[in-house]
Amino acid sequence: MKISDLIEQIKLKKSYLCVGIDPDFDKIPEHIKNEDDPLYFFSKSIIDSTIKFSVALKFNIAFFEAYGVDGISSLERLIKYVNKKYPKVFTIADAKRGDIGNSSSRYAKAYFEKFGFDSITVSPYMGKDSIEPFVSFKDRYAIILALTSNSGSQDFQLITSGRKKVYERVIIESRKWNGSENMMYVIGATKSEHLANIRQIIPDSFLLIPGVGKQGGSLKEVSFFGMNNKIGILVNSSRSIIYASKKEDFAERAGYEASKLRDEMELILKEKKII
Amino acid sequence: MKISDLIEQIKLKKSYLCVGIDPDFDKIPEHIKNEDDPLYFFSKSIIDSTIKFSVALKFNIAFFEAYGVDGISSLERLIKYVNKKYPKVFTIADAKRGDIGNSSSRYAKAYFEKFGFDSITVSPYMGKDSIEPFVSFKDRYAIILALTSNSGSQDFQLITSGRKKVYERVIIESRKWNGSENMMYVIGATKSEHLANIRQIIPDSFLLIPGVGKQGGSLKEVSFFGMNNKIGILVNSSRSIIYASKKEDFAERAGYEASKLRDEMELILKEKKII
Repeated sequence: MKISDLIEQIKLKKSYLCVGIDPDFDKIPEHIKNEDDPLYFFSKSIIDSTIKFSVALKFNIAFFEAYGVDGISSLERLIKYVNKKYPKVFTIADAKRGDIGNSSSRYAKAYFEKFGFDSITVSPYMGKDSIEPFVSFKDRYAIILALTSNSGSQDFQLITSGRKKVYERVIIESRKWNGSENMMYVIGATKSEHLANIRQIIPDSFLLIPGVGKQGGSLKEVSFFGMNNKIGILVNSSRSIIYASKKEDFAERAGYEASKLRDEMELILKEKKII
Repeated sequence: MKISDLIEQIKLKKSYLCVGIDPDFDKIPEHIKNEDDPLYFFSKSIIDSTIKFSVALKFNIAFFEAYGVDGISSLERLIKYVNKKYPKVFTIADAKRGDIGNSSSRYAKAYFEKFGFDSITVSPYMGKDSIEPFVSFKDRYAIILALTSNSGSQDFQLITSGRKKVYERVIIESRKWNGSENMMYVIGATKSEHLANIRQIIPDSFLLIPGVGKQGGSLKEVSFFGMNNKIGILVNSSRSIIYASKKEDFAERAGYEASKLRDEMELILKEKKII
């Protein structure tokens, strides 16, 4: 998918919402636990009811891998369904992969060719040759972990090296690598005080911003500091949407939560005179 | 598996060799490509013929994930086979995972409970809460990427923060976290000049040392600088063992390559007066 198509979708749906699919068997409604493939059924229902309000879907691979072959099989069915039924949605494999070049190539093959995702989150710790295999595919994207939303982000991302924080060096260095036009960055919503600075370093790159909702980030704040004149952000919400209800109305309630975020986003897009 | 059992196995087999299982369909012998489950067949043959000379097996998850559900299914069969037939071998999921705590817990569940590995490699970029879920299991281990064997290791691992390199800070910080007794570290064989320094910081931790063979690291050098008085190292070799031959004798030749490394290791263990 091209970034220009993503931007078009955002304007059309008046939303830069990414819905995070983290299906946990212990948390899904009781009445669907007896379905043939409950992970698939749950996720599909959530997607169908939120897709009107969202432009991107982030699949948290950990939640599928936890169920071994069955989980990966549900994932494969889901991404096939989405690619067929909603070809204009931007899909993210939230996998946080990264290995020596030879192995990263295999992960890229898995997520782009085998599964068919538009993008994958990647960890930068192993440097250039661990990232480049992910950005050599046309219209596919590596979303590099820069500054994450969790408390552990202070341990290494926020320590200083020279006059920069490590996460800034990740951003600055990666701009010099091959395929940098296919790179996006993860910036946690709980770190909005850094967003203005990040926008100085990378005015044009798209940012994936998780951590709004349960993790405590503010949509208004991250939009204010993170947006550029081509929108430039996707804001993810997972648990507060997908677990809004554990009853028969779980999908409907997920849709309602997504619509509330979309409404806020519409106002922000209008304030910013983007739509 | 307990570390004391691993050390016993090393003394018994006179080997601290870890065989890396990176099965690539394009590289396996032609005559086994028509097997029902070629990835399983290839890997199992290699394991059976090298197990006399090795104490650990490292499964490179990228190479299984590349084949989607089929690949994960081969992996599940393999680890079941190994745990049943060779319960005393130390198994490593070379997955380089790491995510916010909630998601890391799911990866830990996948690799320790669902698949049944003894250990998993993890990336430290997201800090404390991304690692701790992996070290809360009894007798299971997180092998933290510290200084890797690839060229990209210079991009962030070897930059300076305060008076330390980032990889040193990873090691030093992680010692303060819960479950540090269940942590090991990846130190690339191509970085042997750092091993003496690393041993000063962590005299007792076990190190997983990849990069001997095709990547150019020297077994003698890493053993000299990396060993402690409880041995303390596993040296991994993947491609130079498993792709020693592409013909009918592939398993036999893999065994021969492993035996050569074992012979060298026996000499080193004797020189060090460990056996």
